[in-house]
Amino acid sequence: MTIENISVNKSFGGWHKQYSHYSNILNCTMQFAIFLPPQVVCGKKVPVIYWLSDVSCTDENFMQKAGVQRLAAELGVAIVAPDTSPRGDDIIDDVEHGLGQGAGFYVNATQAPWNRHYQMYDYVVDELPKLIETHFPINEKSAISGHSMGGHGALVIAMRNPERYQSVSAFSPISNPMDVPWGQKAFTAYLGQDRESWASYDTCALMRKAKHFVPARVDQGESDGSLDDQLTAKKLSDAAKVSGYPLELNQHVDYDHSYYLISSFIEQHLRFHASHLN
Amino acid sequence: MTIENISVNKSFGGWHKQYSHYSNILNCTMQFAIFLPPQVVCGKKVPVIYWLSDVSCTDENFMQKAGVQRLAAELGVAIVAPDTSPRGDDIIDDVEHGLGQGAGFYVNATQAPWNRHYQMYDYVVDELPKLIETHFPINEKSAISGHSMGGHGALVIAMRNPERYQSVSAFSPISNPMDVPWGQKAFTAYLGQDRESWASYDTCALMRKAKHFVPARVDQGESDGSLDDQLTAKKLSDAAKVSGYPLELNQHVDYDHSYYLISSFIEQHLRFHASHLN
Repeated sequence: MTIENISVNKSFGGWHKQYSHYSNILNCTMQFAIFLPPQVVCGKKVPVIYWLSDVSCTDENFMQKAGVQRLAAELGVAIVAPDTSPRGDDIIDDVEHGLGQGAGFYVNATQAPWNRHYQMYDYVVDELPKLIETHFPINEKSAISGHSMGGHGALVIAMRNPERYQSVSAFSPISNPMDVPWGQKAFTAYLGQDRESWASYDTCALMRKAKHFVPARVDQGESDGSLDDQLTAKKLSDAAKVSGYPLELNQHVDYDHSYYLISSFIEQHLRFHASHLN
Repeated sequence: MTIENISVNKSFGGWHKQYSHYSNILNCTMQFAIFLPPQVVCGKKVPVIYWLSDVSCTDENFMQKAGVQRLAAELGVAIVAPDTSPRGDDIIDDVEHGLGQGAGFYVNATQAPWNRHYQMYDYVVDELPKLIETHFPINEKSAISGHSMGGHGALVIAMRNPERYQSVSAFSPISNPMDVPWGQKAFTAYLGQDRESWASYDTCALMRKAKHFVPARVDQGESDGSLDDQLTAKKLSDAAKVSGYPLELNQHVDYDHSYYLISSFIEQHLRFHASHLN
């Protein structure tokens, strides 16, 4: 489990760093970014928030555009941003259909040819946290968050591993991928035709049946062009009512699907997580 | 002086918008971005800070990466980010030598073939402010800021037009372009061999002789790989002492030339400008 440093930038008294490493789960070299707050310089171990990005993003988008470092530095939490899929010239891809590199959907693919590399669920749940705990001054508390495809990933991963995460949040998540075109396309390719297998990666399906809760916050722009037919926040709200899931859903008039939504409300997400992590 | 809206995003209660317009000074269609803080919704006119970006940037880099909107919304100031040069398929360019599109250097070119389009000084000083004042709820107060090539532009423009700007700031400016390779390359191409003409675009030269002052703040990373041979903050400090220029120069250990420097200290720049604008 070795890692190689690629870049270093001082930021808000802490450090933004990028690393590459070989992933045994994904069978390829991966890259991730970490922000270490200034508190670690004094030998303190800090909690960590994992951030899962949207389709076509890498480890860079969130670190460059969200404005998260100011809050992470103030609150003393680390931020880890993995890539959104396996990467490499020899990794299968299908740009034409919006599948493949940059669009791993945070599932373990069961269907050839995807199943050799596309195991992003296990990568995010198991391999990456072990790597982070091995190499960085991280304590046992963690949270997870993400945007759109990454919001779907964060919610699914937290609900399936409630003992692992103190809190979960999402911006504009694909809440019910089983029943919307973006999710159906990805699930058909990666998981096959059996809808039973899809339910374990569907936030609404998991939330309706949930017995162990992770405090959840979701923010959604009401002028998001994908709200009604792909993201379906209303269904998420309905699913939470079925199980009494502790979901705080915030809808914002005039806000869209972009990083301008994320940067506007990242402070509230960080303070929400910090209240559960510290 | 018509403008065409290209994009709109709600951000921190205000609006990020992009526009295109035909520039009579640059003889081409240009694009700029503006952030309008929430205060304008109530019919209030607000001051404006112009931001000049670095080589290879467009109107987008600062708006996406600096985290400026939070402060601009709190302080009630508009932000305007122009492009860094004339643009278009029929505009002369010289990517190989780092000249041309994306590298206008905020001068009025006097040398063919550059002089037909590359008049960025007049565009930023005259045409763009008139456009902004015509179309947006802006009051008579303004400031100017920028990064690297844009820091050079901001300082030169403020010093040559002290009656127009309440304050000026820069991150990692090219302080003495006449005497460093980046500046000499650009000035030779755009202004010719006559060093006399260069001095009117050189912050150190202008600062040494300044009689009318604009309050100035500069932030510089000490781990910036270009500090000693291109940016030369020490020469800026020396030039300020000659004329007694009100320059606050802040040097930051471990910080580099990237947007991680800018985002870390943009709050201090916005509060500095607001103290002079309001």
